Amino acid sequence: MRVTVYPVHTLLRADRPPRGAAVVIDTLRMTTVAATALENGCQALWAVSTIEEANALAQSAGALRGGERGAVKIDGFELSNSPLEYTREAVGGRRLVLTTTNGTQAIASAAGAPRLYLACLRNAGAAARLLRGEEDVAIVLAGTGGRFSLEDALTAGAILDRLGACEEDDMALAARTLYRQNRTAIHELLSPCAHYRHLQAIGYGADLDFCLKEDCADAVPFRLAGEEAFHTRATHETEEMK
Amino acid sequence: MRVTVYPVHTLLRADRPPRGAAVVIDTLRMTTVAATALENGCQALWAVSTIEEANALAQSAGALRGGERGAVKIDGFELSNSPLEYTREAVGGRRLVLTTTNGTQAIASAAGAPRLYLACLRNAGAAARLLRGEEDVAIVLAGTGGRFSLEDALTAGAILDRLGACEEDDMALAARTLYRQNRTAIHELLSPCAHYRHLQAIGYGADLDFCLKEDCADAVPFRLAGEEAFHTRATHETEEMK
Repeated sequence: MRVTVYPVHTLLRADRPPRGAAVVIDTLRMTTVAATALENGCQALWAVSTIEEANALAQSAGALRGGERGAVKIDGFELSNSPLEYTREAVGGRRLVLTTTNGTQAIASAAGAPRLYLACLRNAGAAARLLRGEEDVAIVLAGTGGRFSLEDALTAGAILDRLGACEEDDMALAARTLYRQNRTAIHELLSPCAHYRHLQAIGYGADLDFCLKEDCADAVPFRLAGEEAFHTRATHETEEMK
Repeated sequence: MRVTVYPVHTLLRADRPPRGAAVVIDTLRMTTVAATALENGCQALWAVSTIEEANALAQSAGALRGGERGAVKIDGFELSNSPLEYTREAVGGRRLVLTTTNGTQAIASAAGAPRLYLACLRNAGAAARLLRGEEDVAIVLAGTGGRFSLEDALTAGAILDRLGACEEDDMALAARTLYRQNRTAIHELLSPCAHYRHLQAIGYGADLDFCLKEDCADAVPFRLAGEEAFHTRATHETEEMK
């Protein structure tokens, strides 16, 4: 397996979409929200770039609207970008549309991939299991405002750690090394980061604890090229869906 | 001091040049060549994007031509991109023009900066001393073919390590962490990297040893906005030149 890690999603060129699987990571917090929502029974999940698109889908598909601008809830939306809100009571059996500052833009950058996954620390192990058998994997870090985010690289490293030996590019090697050397001190490593501190400062400290836990979700949001919505691709489905 | 690290030079936007100092890093091998040439008495150094520009400067300024395409020497050029060739005998008192696949392109991306430095592991300490007193520092990693290169990140980490406490972005924190946790095993860390292995395979193993030594050069190639050529900015000059 060849693994390429894009340090920022804006480095993906629209004219050269990933050839195999793409994995978008926005650990704080969009892809954690997506994994949590599907884990808790959400039936279909759209990721859109604009508030207008989200409103339109809410009307046409009866979807709940979640997301953020500037890390805070969008006026009129049912849900913010805090994964703690995406309980079974809130999203079980429902459809959901998300729009966020970075994660949904990163998904748009990777949209040309034949198979598209959303990963975070909570579903890192499950994502690695689903990726086994792929020849080409592009891991796309969402970052923040077009800039590299360390928590996304650590998440890529966690997936690579669970994948085992593969042909890695330099960013993959850097991510795996950072993860392996700091896995027991992730909060300490991230605590100087602007995004981490911002979420803490505006009262989302519990989100940080939730988002930075590893391997506690089996749901990996998944979409084939041409599909509009993400759905669950639990580990046990791998064989039948290939 | 605020430090921003660009994981790949292509992320620098031409319409938003760095506001203070920019530091371009292409440790394997262009910025190592540049530092070595100036250390050994080269009087002025141009970095240009094309072979045609290099040939023109060689004629008009009597400059030696050095560089590579595909890591090998360019037909008709006096020097390759191996820093070992840039001895005092070869470049002392001479002018030099370099064109390479990645380094000179990264310099072009950062050309709008008021003050532009070229750094590598060999002059990391000297570069850090020259940067003291700067408010904004943009460290620009050349990478390879538009992709992140780990040795450039380690070099950024070495500079940050010597700068001490500063306001870092996530990539700076990642680079400093990678450097601090792997400084005694840099060859081991880099040995799986494609660029490292390629240089080894085509007979440049001695270049790797040379380029990955820390703090053995005082010369830091330097250029003010508007200047065409880099010249030496040794540590002791800092005060008088400010």
